[in-house]
Amino acid sequence: MPSHRLDVLAIGNAIVDVIADADDAFLAAQGVEKGSMRLIDEDEAARLYGEMRPGREASGGSAANTVAGLAALGLTAGFIGQLGDDQLGEIFTHDIRSLGVAFDTPPRGDAATARCLILVTPDAQRTMNTFLGAAQTLAPDAINPARVADAAILYLEGYLWDPETPRAAMYAAIDAARAAGTKVAFTLSDSFVIARHRGDFVKLIEAGQIDILFANEAEILMLADEAEFDAAVDAVAAKVPLLVVTRSEHGAVARAGAERASVPAEPIARLVDTTGAGDLFAAGFLAGHVRGLGLEKSLKLGAIAAAEVIQHYGARPEADLKALAGDLLA
Amino acid sequence: MPSHRLDVLAIGNAIVDVIADADDAFLAAQGVEKGSMRLIDEDEAARLYGEMRPGREASGGSAANTVAGLAALGLTAGFIGQLGDDQLGEIFTHDIRSLGVAFDTPPRGDAATARCLILVTPDAQRTMNTFLGAAQTLAPDAINPARVADAAILYLEGYLWDPETPRAAMYAAIDAARAAGTKVAFTLSDSFVIARHRGDFVKLIEAGQIDILFANEAEILMLADEAEFDAAVDAVAAKVPLLVVTRSEHGAVARAGAERASVPAEPIARLVDTTGAGDLFAAGFLAGHVRGLGLEKSLKLGAIAAAEVIQHYGARPEADLKALAGDLLA
Repeated sequence: MPSHRLDVLAIGNAIVDVIADADDAFLAAQGVEKGSMRLIDEDEAARLYGEMRPGREASGGSAANTVAGLAALGLTAGFIGQLGDDQLGEIFTHDIRSLGVAFDTPPRGDAATARCLILVTPDAQRTMNTFLGAAQTLAPDAINPARVADAAILYLEGYLWDPETPRAAMYAAIDAARAAGTKVAFTLSDSFVIARHRGDFVKLIEAGQIDILFANEAEILMLADEAEFDAAVDAVAAKVPLLVVTRSEHGAVARAGAERASVPAEPIARLVDTTGAGDLFAAGFLAGHVRGLGLEKSLKLGAIAAAEVIQHYGARPEADLKALAGDLLA
Repeated sequence: MPSHRLDVLAIGNAIVDVIADADDAFLAAQGVEKGSMRLIDEDEAARLYGEMRPGREASGGSAANTVAGLAALGLTAGFIGQLGDDQLGEIFTHDIRSLGVAFDTPPRGDAATARCLILVTPDAQRTMNTFLGAAQTLAPDAINPARVADAAILYLEGYLWDPETPRAAMYAAIDAARAAGTKVAFTLSDSFVIARHRGDFVKLIEAGQIDILFANEAEILMLADEAEFDAAVDAVAAKVPLLVVTRSEHGAVARAGAERASVPAEPIARLVDTTGAGDLFAAGFLAGHVRGLGLEKSLKLGAIAAAEVIQHYGARPEADLKALAGDLLA
């Protein structure tokens, strides 16, 4: 493998999270399904925000959270995502750049930065209501093929399939990656996203366009259209070179051809907010993978990074992930 | 005392906090004094923000934190403060209104919402760098005398003395309060603020314009120009009907004429970020005072509210303060 300037280049929705506590009755009254992500328009965002409890704001976005984790683990990472030219955009830009992530997608003046209204219930589950704003305008011309070629891994989030323009940008990025020998990593993001775009995802996988696939339990079942976990993993593992499936408190499994590994979840002191758990698991796993640590140690790094992020509000690491990784990444 | 629509009406800087971890070396390199608040202009705010680690954003402002605490404790509260017409202003407005606080100061289009860059060191101390923006334009005409008359207590923060226009607004508010029999509560805010405005503060106190005074240890020493704590408390207590002095982990004392009380600090599991400790102490104390609980129980409520806010990032309560207050406010 040639030497690359970036270990991972990620493309994703550039989002600022607005995180508030809520109870199950509030979710029911709002008619939203706990644990899911739904897209909302600006009017609904304003209405729901008006009903929510006081919030805390922090940069988010699934793939952006993953590169934040990668940078915190000492890898070189870049990010491409569309912001508005506004205060939330400045916050997002500051947060990702201050981690050392290369980020230079110019903001747009004609749309507001995306925000995700995240309702955290007492069981620490997060329910996400996303107003995509500027993020849904990420265009193919924001993807520089030379930049993609200069990364060892291109990382994409399934959420980008929802709006049409970023979807086209993703296909352009995948083409650039395949032409350059850059590996394509993909996270399925959400089972409702799969419900909307399963055909596209299956086509990409069948065509051998995905080298590394991340999913959780609900997502792998829906993608494989299977009712049983092992059968779903077997079916998908046969079609992607590297498959990683997270199972919340039951740990995670990885499959690479005949090779298999699994890890338990890391012990935690206090479960606060599961937002970002999957994103940080992907960060830890990819960090190990890039460093050539093998499936089991890479899974372990994923579990460590996920355990950190679920013990506080917000989807970006707050503790020193490198220190938590200890000898694994030394 | 006639019945009032509001228990407490507060006037303060309307600020969104940007909270980031920092170490002592960073503070030294920036030339800022740990534990203090300094005012910075927009250029310095942009420069410092560029140097800071990733942030979390949350509504702040000293007096605004106090009314947030009061509302969380079940009191009726209002707030007056100047925002810009921007996203940070929307965040501030949402957060304070969602607590049930009456807030209707119209935002201004010609200045950005104030932000406070808060550096939290590993010892949980906060060092504040405040860009006042729109907050420094709060004008006397924003103070409705009828609204002041309709509150049992008018609560003012010393920070407002720094910019000239809000200072004039404060004097107008104090006049309205005295004319209506509304009690005036005042927090000294910061020892550097006292260094800049001690003459004004002494004059207000000597003229009998302050009914309830809040200070911490450093502030009471500087205000009294004394080197010894008890002497400073004695000197100031002789001039204000009600004096409350907080002493961080050493608890707090209150004096009302010949009456004296003190409480130890509440035990905490984990000290995270002391931002808002004094603001929430004032909230707890005032809640007890308004409910007629007497000095000791009011101090205890202050200690409970302060203990909650220092166990997480951000200056607004996250746990259910009413539940924490238990029988005290039942």
